[in-house]
Amino acid sequence: MMHDVKIKKLKLLPDERGFLMEMLRCDDEVFKDFGQVYITGCARGIAKAWHYHKEQTDNFVCVYGRALVVLCDLRDGSPTYGVSEEYLIEGPPPTLTLPLKGEGRVGGEGNILLQIPPFVVHGFTAYECDDARIINIPTLPYKYEKPDEYRYPWNSEEIPYKWPPYVTRGG
Amino acid sequence: MMHDVKIKKLKLLPDERGFLMEMLRCDDEVFKDFGQVYITGCARGIAKAWHYHKEQTDNFVCVYGRALVVLCDLRDGSPTYGVSEEYLIEGPPPTLTLPLKGEGRVGGEGNILLQIPPFVVHGFTAYECDDARIINIPTLPYKYEKPDEYRYPWNSEEIPYKWPPYVTRGG
Repeated sequence: MMHDVKIKKLKLLPDERGFLMEMLRCDDEVFKDFGQVYITGCARGIAKAWHYHKEQTDNFVCVYGRALVVLCDLRDGSPTYGVSEEYLIEGPPPTLTLPLKGEGRVGGEGNILLQIPPFVVHGFTAYECDDARIINIPTLPYKYEKPDEYRYPWNSEEIPYKWPPYVTRGG
Repeated sequence: MMHDVKIKKLKLLPDERGFLMEMLRCDDEVFKDFGQVYITGCARGIAKAWHYHKEQTDNFVCVYGRALVVLCDLRDGSPTYGVSEEYLIEGPPPTLTLPLKGEGRVGGEGNILLQIPPFVVHGFTAYECDDARIINIPTLPYKYEKPDEYRYPWNSEEIPYKWPPYVTRGG
């Protein structure tokens, strides 16, 4: 796995009313600091990419649909320099298809929190769905006057990753 | 408005890629403490009710569908004792129906963060949808060994609120 990237497996608890899923707790091992919570939605065929931060650590959780999140390590001196990694993260399925109470937990492999450290270039796209929604809980709030946000074009040749053919636009 | 309940209006920023919406920032006036972030989903016809906390303040944001959130004030000595209030909060609409970049911001009245203080009894149901998803950012993490969570039955006669007729079950 890419150096310093962390995953927290999430437990989706469905019952006959709907579901509940804890995402990030202040006493989690992966928790660093609370900057803010925001939601970002991505439509089919679009890559929201590429971004990186110099100070902020991101914590991504998919809350609806499915998202393909891609990380690229261009950090000088990183033991995983040059590596790119794909993560398929998914939100809870539609509540009405969840099993009834007593049938136990459903723990999809895609129910994870993905922690992305500073300087790791990242982006995401909707995976086989029209609407992928990710919650990010970064360690710092967005500074409008001086954003800690740096970019490459979504199809930059400087990034060692080619989006799948269904991705036709980005930004 | 019910005593000590607070609302933060959220700005939904749609563009041709999808949308972005800040929810709670550590420098917000309404921000108190970060306990955790969890997601709770509710199916049509169900009331997730009634709950209250003795220490924790909740911060509800709808991230998908629409939710009818109901608050009841049974706090001794509260200037709004006996009052019940309904809030219709809604998640961002499907990304593909959002306007193109440059057409400006869409600020639905339902895009709010609802802050619910301790001892205010609350619950919610899916409003005219099959799947309402709420993010809660409480000031304290859930304590499994000693939950700060107290309940009344969803249809308790002690609570001065009657759920709409489409709500037929709860818990």
